[in-house]
Amino acid sequence: MPIRFRDLGFMPGVLPVGPHNAITDVPGVRVGHTTLIDGDHIRTGVTVILPHGDNLFLEKVPAAAYTINGFGKAAGLEQIRELGSIETPIALTNTLNVARVADALVTYSMAANPGIGWQLGTVNPVVGECNDGYLNDIRGRYVSEAHVLAAINAATGGPVAEGNVGAGTGVQCYGFKGGIGTASRQIVPRDGETQPTYTLGTLVQTNFGARKDLRILGVPVGEQFVDPGQIDPDGSIMIVVATDAPLTSRQLERVAHRVSFGLGRTGTICHHGSGDFVIAFSTAYRLPHRADTMFADAPRLRDDRLLDRLFRAVVETVEEAVYNALIAAKPLTGYQDHHLPALPHDQLVDLLQRYHP
Amino acid sequence: MPIRFRDLGFMPGVLPVGPHNAITDVPGVRVGHTTLIDGDHIRTGVTVILPHGDNLFLEKVPAAAYTINGFGKAAGLEQIRELGSIETPIALTNTLNVARVADALVTYSMAANPGIGWQLGTVNPVVGECNDGYLNDIRGRYVSEAHVLAAINAATGGPVAEGNVGAGTGVQCYGFKGGIGTASRQIVPRDGETQPTYTLGTLVQTNFGARKDLRILGVPVGEQFVDPGQIDPDGSIMIVVATDAPLTSRQLERVAHRVSFGLGRTGTICHHGSGDFVIAFSTAYRLPHRADTMFADAPRLRDDRLLDRLFRAVVETVEEAVYNALIAAKPLTGYQDHHLPALPHDQLVDLLQRYHP
Amino acid sequence: MPIRFRDLGFMPGVLPVGPHNAITDVPGVRVGHTTLIDGDHIRTGVTVILPHGDNLFLEKVPAAAYTINGFGKAAGLEQIRELGSIETPIALTNTLNVARVADALVTYSMAANPGIGWQLGTVNPVVGECNDGYLNDIRGRYVSEAHVLAAINAATGGPVAEGNVGAGTGVQCYGFKGGIGTASRQIVPRDGETQPTYTLGTLVQTNFGARKDLRILGVPVGEQFVDPGQIDPDGSIMIVVATDAPLTSRQLERVAHRVSFGLGRTGTICHHGSGDFVIAFSTAYRLPHRADTMFADAPRLRDDRLLDRLFRAVVETVEEAVYNALIAAKPLTGYQDHHLPALPHDQLVDLLQRYHP
Amino acid sequence: MPIRFRDLGFMPGVLPVGPHNAITDVPGVRVGHTTLIDGDHIRTGVTVILPHGDNLFLEKVPAAAYTINGFGKAAGLEQIRELGSIETPIALTNTLNVARVADALVTYSMAANPGIGWQLGTVNPVVGECNDGYLNDIRGRYVSEAHVLAAINAATGGPVAEGNVGAGTGVQCYGFKGGIGTASRQIVPRDGETQPTYTLGTLVQTNFGARKDLRILGVPVGEQFVDPGQIDPDGSIMIVVATDAPLTSRQLERVAHRVSFGLGRTGTICHHGSGDFVIAFSTAYRLPHRADTMFADAPRLRDDRLLDRLFRAVVETVEEAVYNALIAAKPLTGYQDHHLPALPHDQLVDLLQRYHP
Repeated sequence: MPIRFRDLGFMPGVLPVGPHNAITDVPGVRVGHTTLIDGDHIRTGVTVILPHGDNLFLEKVPAAAYTINGFGKAAGLEQIRELGSIETPIALTNTLNVARVADALVTYSMAANPGIGWQLGTVNPVVGECNDGYLNDIRGRYVSEAHVLAAINAATGGPVAEGNVGAGTGVQCYGFKGGIGTASRQIVPRDGETQPTYTLGTLVQTNFGARKDLRILGVPVGEQFVDPGQIDPDGSIMIVVATDAPLTSRQLERVAHRVSFGLGRTGTICHHGSGDFVIAFSTAYRLPHRADTMFADAPRLRDDRLLDRLFRAVVETVEEAVYNALIAAKPLTGYQDHHLPALPHDQLVDLLQRYHP
Repeated sequence: MPIRFRDLGFMPGVLPVGPHNAITDVPGVRVGHTTLIDGDHIRTGVTVILPHGDNLFLEKVPAAAYTINGFGKAAGLEQIRELGSIETPIALTNTLNVARVADALVTYSMAANPGIGWQLGTVNPVVGECNDGYLNDIRGRYVSEAHVLAAINAATGGPVAEGNVGAGTGVQCYGFKGGIGTASRQIVPRDGETQPTYTLGTLVQTNFGARKDLRILGVPVGEQFVDPGQIDPDGSIMIVVATDAPLTSRQLERVAHRVSFGLGRTGTICHHGSGDFVIAFSTAYRLPHRADTMFADAPRLRDDRLLDRLFRAVVETVEEAVYNALIAAKPLTGYQDHHLPALPHDQLVDLLQRYHP
Repeated sequence: MPIRFRDLGFMPGVLPVGPHNAITDVPGVRVGHTTLIDGDHIRTGVTVILPHGDNLFLEKVPAAAYTINGFGKAAGLEQIRELGSIETPIALTNTLNVARVADALVTYSMAANPGIGWQLGTVNPVVGECNDGYLNDIRGRYVSEAHVLAAINAATGGPVAEGNVGAGTGVQCYGFKGGIGTASRQIVPRDGETQPTYTLGTLVQTNFGARKDLRILGVPVGEQFVDPGQIDPDGSIMIVVATDAPLTSRQLERVAHRVSFGLGRTGTICHHGSGDFVIAFSTAYRLPHRADTMFADAPRLRDDRLLDRLFRAVVETVEEAVYNALIAAKPLTGYQDHHLPALPHDQLVDLLQRYHP
Repeated sequence: MPIRFRDLGFMPGVLPVGPHNAITDVPGVRVGHTTLIDGDHIRTGVTVILPHGDNLFLEKVPAAAYTINGFGKAAGLEQIRELGSIETPIALTNTLNVARVADALVTYSMAANPGIGWQLGTVNPVVGECNDGYLNDIRGRYVSEAHVLAAINAATGGPVAEGNVGAGTGVQCYGFKGGIGTASRQIVPRDGETQPTYTLGTLVQTNFGARKDLRILGVPVGEQFVDPGQIDPDGSIMIVVATDAPLTSRQLERVAHRVSFGLGRTGTICHHGSGDFVIAFSTAYRLPHRADTMFADAPRLRDDRLLDRLFRAVVETVEEAVYNALIAAKPLTGYQDHHLPALPHDQLVDLLQRYHP
């Protein structure tokens, strides 16, 4: 049974978590990984997030993109901004593989929709990335179309593998081994409120941060460890946020803006060389590719009602997803004998207990 | 002698601070306040920041504006975005007084430049605001042209008054009395580097945050206090950042983006109703209003050199400026007998010592 | 009976026009002017556009702002961008009067809503501007609160006065006398469509363009006139777009982007010194300031249906509104004996007939 | 000798043109095409624009990206926005081939720079696209890595092939056959000015517009032709702008904004389904990937000097480049026997002469 941050006995935030404390707690959301570890040089992979299990191209979801720091190669953000929707799985991979993974999403979408390129128009693949070149022979571009399709086919709800899996296989986090992390929060109705419980979940691919800057639950943990100084803090972090609250793309963009506040809690200063992109979507309603009707309608949340609770949820899940990536990650040696140690759990618990007795 | 956060024996951040730990440590920058406390209902004022002491309209400074959350009425940001420069003092005041204060800046600029409105074109006043309506009879719009001109005339370098002064007179911070806060950091050359020491300073006008969310140095201080529940966390925060590092407006905008990471350290989730605007400028060179030359030239920092150190400086100064506002603020009773207590220093020290022994 | 461009016998565009060929053809929209012509130096005023006749603060309308070139001092755009709504009349005036007019909108809103500044929060005044300093003693800031309130009180539906009225009193257009212009288009259902006829209307305050660049219906009219060379083409143009089509703020922003294409038809290159701002709103539904419900709901147009017809409508109305401003404007002498001639109708007809026989 | 618009006897604009009236008039800029016409179904290709002939990754150029309408899949814009620079050739292709072409640019950059993916960081490929699926079997994704490398190797200065070449092979323009078009303008010093002559050049890949909307030199040419109604006006247009004027990325972005005004002259309303992206760069100075110096310095143009002349140049070159694409394009039959006729030159001349005798 994999260890997660809460298993250490600490709880970030105040909102209740979903059953798996994962982005998949948002009903319908699926996550799949293909992990590539081979020889002494391949340490990479791909992770996909599917907003739902149906044909995403025909039934798009409302979405928003937000760039925290744009030193990165993420694909597909322009069309999300213009149209406020997503029509493919969201794939995460390494930096030099973005194009090949995007091409695989095109293949996937064309296979499912023979009308693409013809009467149905074209398709906008969405891909995020981190540079895993410290542990991985990134120039090899080892993530192939088959790996992407395998991750999509393997995508499921339920618990999400974290740490050294999929796109998180070769990445760092605050100078320790990082990877995939996830978390969720529930927005439970208060007395007298009649809306259902909403869930917001976040998944991150970490590759950011200098060791000395790491804060966990406010404790300056990173200062207690010697910084090896070899790991470039100019990494990146990709953040995918899902919710079943009925938000417009405008509201999703406002949710995405709050990711910086969650990241700020973990200590980073957001380095110059970081490519930090947020993609947020709602599963509460769908936007059909074509329709006979003139109108698109769905209930939307008023700005002044639950939005602050969703903002709290995104800040808390971002914070905890980073911790979960750190806790789940195993030490790894890779390309050119480079090594990333895991954040030692015992030492961390000692430090946290000193501050949070 | 006023108390500041560091006087309590704790030090946020790792970079060295300037002589006054204030925005005025950036050479040439001046700050002035007009504080309006009258009867039982007037608790407001105006604070001005001058990038330099010469004619700002004729000698503009490079600048950037960044909107964290745009539920606010700040004036002048459009032109800063288009031209990357500032040509008036930056004034902070209360929300319903923005227009009158902007008008006063027009008056001030016209008086200093008889050519404005004629051969010299027009002028772009820059004003930020917070809603101090809990303690102040904000509908009275008590800040007049004379108050703005007085603040400009009173502006000086050196130590900056904090807490219940100027635009900080009537505002809150995490459910305690807040106000004006400031801090600075120095970027000292490392071995072999030949550039001078650069300074970055930040000044904030706080009016944001829910008490339960307050974190100081990572310690969840706010949870230890009962939340009175009457203070609207949908306030705002205005952030002004100055540096003498030779940055372009593009680089200044990137510096401004990091303010969210500093605010995140203090615990906020950035509420829906918050108007959070950053204005950043450099004093390293000036942009003459008119010139005979075709070219504008000045040394600019390479992105990959000191930018990360300036990012660290802005994160640290934002964090400490918020703490300084909290520590300097005195309890205040105002309009309709509303009251804001100060964050109790003794209790805070106890809490911090428990975590940072 | 005032002359309009169509009265000369030419028709720009292909879509049908509304009954008044004016922004007021959008049901509920009202326009009011206060024109200030006094002595030999006052040639200015204020124009207000009201999305509807009810309490705008309590019943906001969806809206978008778009900056074509931000060398200008428009007020209130930040909050429109964040929230996608407008809550005051939109006022147009001269550049140095923006703050005073914004302050008057605050006064107006507070008078109608005693809760502003207290339990209802604050208010975001929206003001656009052009520099009428060639004909007007702009340093006098002659537009007072009373003038703004008079324009609001005088606002009506029906025909809209154009040319030298309100905010258009002292402005230029392509080196001729310009002013206020307006136009509208109808989106009539096609066979089998069941939606109602929608209307889109545009109102402009012109102060832009070099005479030599003027194109009317594609005819390079401006080249046929000697350019006096004294008028600064670095003026501005404010564009207000209204529609009763049920658009989201995202869709309104996309409509606003098309204004550049309408302006492009009239020949301008969009000068460096121009402050060109678009404000677009829909009257199809309202956004209550406060509500007991969690949800906001209204039918919205699908992107792939009528949006292109609305894009055509905005391009055509912008083009024709500029022509209407030129045709309605009368020659005017003002400050320091400066003079702006009107575009001579006879000569224009001759030129157009040569090209469009 | 291929025919261009000016060969018909008409001259758009007033500025002088460069020796080839092409983007390659900007010294150092190279253009290369790979044209794929095979069987009855392949009608596509790739076009590359190289800002200079040296190692672009090591010697980047200042750049800006601007999205007119973001319904498109262009790659690499995020990093251009954050850093204001370009580090690969700019490639244009068809929509479903974007990822493969981006991957080829990665291959190209890695081959030239063995340090990419290692001590030199990663690389940001820049690709634009149009949907040529009416004439081309776009689902085939026929543009391979070899085709991209061939286009780069073939890139030269001097005259640029237009019409049905490279990325323009299969595209439309206002319901006629379109393709690649280019034009240039010179900014010649006026009396007393000492700066050199600057050149601005534009290259477009057209795939936009409804036939009825086409205006040439202001003449409503499109109305004179029956609209076949089968061509989707929801195409796209990619616009690449080069200049040797020493502009910052901020100024380049302002230049890019003016593209809409040039397109507006040709009649389009900018359809919902159009992906319209501008990439602008300057060759006046270079940004080394790594450097020993802290500072980056180069003379920059003052905003208030030549910017308006460069704005005029971009408006004029965009207008003429679209005309050149239309004039150079030959009729073409392709996939599923779809056919695009060329705009008939004789008929066009007749129409233009009627209006411009």
